[in-house]
Amino acid sequence: MPSEDMDRIFHPRGVAVVGASPNPSKFGFIFYYGLKNSGAPVYPVNPNEREVLGDRCYPTVDAIPYEVDYAVISIPAPSVPKVIEDCGRKGVKAVSIYTAGYGEEGTEEGRRRERELAETARRSGVRVIGPNCIGIYCPKGRLSFFAGLPLVEGEVAFLSQSGGHAEELAYKAENWGIRFSKIVSFGNACDVTPEELLEYLGEDPDTKIIGMYVEGSRDGRRFFEVLRRVAARKPVVVWKGGETEAGARAVASHTGSLAGSVQVWRAALRQAGAIQVEDFEEMADVLHALSRLPLPRGRRVAVVGAGGGAGVASTDACEKNGLRVAPLSEETVRRLEEVVPTPGTSVRNPVDLSYFALFDFSLMGRCVEILASDPGVDAIIAHVSHLDMMMKALPTSPEEEVLHVMARVKERMRAFPEKPLALVLALESDFEIQKRKVEMRGKLVREGFCVFPTTARAARALSHLAFLREFRERRARAEASQGS
Amino acid sequence: MPSEDMDRIFHPRGVAVVGASPNPSKFGFIFYYGLKNSGAPVYPVNPNEREVLGDRCYPTVDAIPYEVDYAVISIPAPSVPKVIEDCGRKGVKAVSIYTAGYGEEGTEEGRRRERELAETARRSGVRVIGPNCIGIYCPKGRLSFFAGLPLVEGEVAFLSQSGGHAEELAYKAENWGIRFSKIVSFGNACDVTPEELLEYLGEDPDTKIIGMYVEGSRDGRRFFEVLRRVAARKPVVVWKGGETEAGARAVASHTGSLAGSVQVWRAALRQAGAIQVEDFEEMADVLHALSRLPLPRGRRVAVVGAGGGAGVASTDACEKNGLRVAPLSEETVRRLEEVVPTPGTSVRNPVDLSYFALFDFSLMGRCVEILASDPGVDAIIAHVSHLDMMMKALPTSPEEEVLHVMARVKERMRAFPEKPLALVLALESDFEIQKRKVEMRGKLVREGFCVFPTTARAARALSHLAFLREFRERRARAEASQGS
Repeated sequence: MPSEDMDRIFHPRGVAVVGASPNPSKFGFIFYYGLKNSGAPVYPVNPNEREVLGDRCYPTVDAIPYEVDYAVISIPAPSVPKVIEDCGRKGVKAVSIYTAGYGEEGTEEGRRRERELAETARRSGVRVIGPNCIGIYCPKGRLSFFAGLPLVEGEVAFLSQSGGHAEELAYKAENWGIRFSKIVSFGNACDVTPEELLEYLGEDPDTKIIGMYVEGSRDGRRFFEVLRRVAARKPVVVWKGGETEAGARAVASHTGSLAGSVQVWRAALRQAGAIQVEDFEEMADVLHALSRLPLPRGRRVAVVGAGGGAGVASTDACEKNGLRVAPLSEETVRRLEEVVPTPGTSVRNPVDLSYFALFDFSLMGRCVEILASDPGVDAIIAHVSHLDMMMKALPTSPEEEVLHVMARVKERMRAFPEKPLALVLALESDFEIQKRKVEMRGKLVREGFCVFPTTARAARALSHLAFLREFRERRARAEASQGS
Repeated sequence: MPSEDMDRIFHPRGVAVVGASPNPSKFGFIFYYGLKNSGAPVYPVNPNEREVLGDRCYPTVDAIPYEVDYAVISIPAPSVPKVIEDCGRKGVKAVSIYTAGYGEEGTEEGRRRERELAETARRSGVRVIGPNCIGIYCPKGRLSFFAGLPLVEGEVAFLSQSGGHAEELAYKAENWGIRFSKIVSFGNACDVTPEELLEYLGEDPDTKIIGMYVEGSRDGRRFFEVLRRVAARKPVVVWKGGETEAGARAVASHTGSLAGSVQVWRAALRQAGAIQVEDFEEMADVLHALSRLPLPRGRRVAVVGAGGGAGVASTDACEKNGLRVAPLSEETVRRLEEVVPTPGTSVRNPVDLSYFALFDFSLMGRCVEILASDPGVDAIIAHVSHLDMMMKALPTSPEEEVLHVMARVKERMRAFPEKPLALVLALESDFEIQKRKVEMRGKLVREGFCVFPTTARAARALSHLAFLREFRERRARAEASQGS
């Protein structure tokens, strides 16, 4: 599909919702309500209704007296082909089909229905996203899956074979401060392929970072070819569903995909320069980190925080996740010794401020600055531990001080544009404190910090960032040697 | 130490806080304030103060005109030996020493000081917990580390070489509904050893489950001998700090311990029948699961929830964590087909209710009941996904319905006393929704449910429960065959 057509689909002049309904427990209502809420120029289509949410309902798509570029279809499978033909006559560029009951059924009937759908689409000149998907979310084009999704534009795109993962990431993105250019749920991918979408996003000026949840590909060779090209320009994070045998069975009944061999996928993703993640949280964490942090020059991390046990745990977590908690330079140790009180502390890596950090959180700030200036430190993990104790046992409210110190740290980190700083703030806690921590985390995320709930997750994300830089440098060297 | 003496330490007739201070940023204040808050019969000791928090301050421990069984010491290292001698004269059974600057310093001076401390203790007839520790938390004995810790009694004990982990777990326990019989922070363990404490907890009628964070042991042979004996009677969960090379370095400067070989520790823990965990969250999750769930008869898990992508992700997470998402019996599939609408759903394992579960959460409840009655299902994981969408896109508040349905499920699960049910409820989200979820999670935990933030964590915990049952059955068979 020409990229102008694709642009048009993401920024349509009109959107039809086929199967629109006034019944709030039908998806025909949910889609219509969502698109109306996001401000899309939306028209309900349903021969059995006169109006939906106060809007005049049309019997067919081609009865709409306005331009319509995109349609969302949520009606039983047998009625879908006729609607696609109507869309073709109307000049609709693409439809997304929520309807299930196709290839994922695992029956000959389902597969036949899916083939027919693709043929009808081709014959009618209409591109089909799905079936068995929830379509497009694009704040700039005022397209939303459902109501209540954020309508701010961002630079992260997400392609998802699962509608559930697509909308969960969209709804939950605030936790990671992620904002989206586009999310596409592509389901069974009977017509518009993930390869096409990926290629488009590779060229899309609104998209800087790409995430992808994929269960399988009908054309693996092309998938990895496109991936390699796109990943050469933009970070691409891939989550492959169905890595285990039982997972592969689940994939077959979810989108009718062939999961393929885990070893082949892993090796090919790595070769293509894609960052491979294993679950929802890791996907979100890495998109979070890529949005906010520079790629570190190496894997040497300095760990700082309150508590020897927390330091040991953080160190084990870093090393198990591919980072190195290496000794600091003599100069750094000397400078740390000047600010860190004794006894019970450690100015080695991990730096342990013991309980001193609780009474004077600015100590943490000073240490982060000193660590950042060590040429042997590529990244910093600062764990904000013992907040529970600070909130419960001390006559202080640590929130303001922590935020104040961190604002200053952020300012100082500008001097080290290649050194990522990850904060660790555990949420799980006493339920009242947990709510205060959610509030605090929200403020830090809005301030632009990268915040993780555990050191393991911080380390995992930083390790992926290091991989990306290593991959790019290796490729640059290979290109240079080919050129010479 | 005789166990009556140990009982006395945990339920002291009087507690002295040596170094008690009216300055809120000194630990002498924090300990005193904490013990006073927990209702301990506590006396401040400090020759330089006349009163602390309105209580008369004594110049020395032996000047206290009441029975004192236990003392918390928070004064500079050079003054500690004299205080121990005072305690000996006073008949104090044990002291815990917060003071650092001993073996963990890594200097000859530090090690010498620690040896002297142990000698003074022996000579004075006073047992020393620590140094470099925060002592004892025992709600029944009204002992607390710091203020604001819960004072309800429970059946879980935790031994920790890290004071930080000890108090973090105590403060955060509400998240997992864990209540404690005793927590002991034992630090450098120069006198009272982890082996002694473990042995005591093995006999302690108030303790049913034991968790342990350990960085090293001075007497590995005895440690594993005691562990084997105790683990034969009660579940023991062990988190070994310093598993990596850098982690081992951190351990040395934290408690002066030798971390030892990771392979040796892992093999020996397994052989002893201990559950081995790798981080704080896993420790808490397993204690949570052991407190609330039966040990499953096997590793076959049924997964149910809304969303095909979530089903695939859950399946991969289960399989990667040692569980099996096996096919269901024909009878179960037939019964599920009767209640689960089509299309877009799956009655295979994982059971995918698609968005139907959002409009009628009771569907989830009915499926859990059907799955529990399948003889091929050993455990159930129910993921409560798409709450964000339910809260934002639908004109409903799902909290009440979810709680109502789950209460009914809990009732029905009584018929399957050997089948654990784990709920998965992701917290990370839009910040406002996150707070609602914290509230909701709190209600479910208070209702007695086992709730995890990800399927991976639920699966990891269930897998440990399965290990424990397997270990016990293997041992019972071995004993039976030896007996015959």
